[in-house]
Amino acid sequence: MRRTYLRRDKKRGLDATVLWLVCEIGELADAVLKEKPAGKETANVFAWLCSVCNLIDIDLESASFKKYGRGCPKCGQEACICQDV
Amino acid sequence: MRRTYLRRDKKRGLDATVLWLVCEIGELADAVLKEKPAGKETANVFAWLCSVCNLIDIDLESASFKKYGRGCPKCGQEACICQDV
Repeated sequence: MRRTYLRRDKKRGLDATVLWLVCEIGELADAVLKEKPAGKETANVFAWLCSVCNLIDIDLESASFKKYGRGCPKCGQEACICQDV
Repeated sequence: MRRTYLRRDKKRGLDATVLWLVCEIGELADAVLKEKPAGKETANVFAWLCSVCNLIDIDLESASFKKYGRGCPKCGQEACICQDV
């Protein structure tokens, strides 16, 4: 995503890129509510999330492994046993 | 994420899981607006997106590579040259 879109992401700016991410979440919610295939929408949400990360220099893979790589960060179990849903 | 959270995700249900994703997007937007570190928030958005995908049987990696694996799906270039931002 960085190779493909960083130039455009920088030109657009951070705030507008976050807004695009919000838009794509809306499209995903729409697909879910209407029970339509949502593969493209999930890919778009992920793509815009990557764009946001690229603009604020976050390595999404590292950030995700840091928080969730050892299972649930709350109960510490690989398969979460927290009671709250 | 499937191993850690699928049981809880199923118990919670799809609509509420999408709503959690929306909440996390809000927290990410908040961090961006306040220029606070956003690593955890991006990880949370990704985690909830994975939970949504798990509930609707979408392989996010495959869906993302299918759409973006060859660069920009609109202009066809590895480094996007589309004019619209």
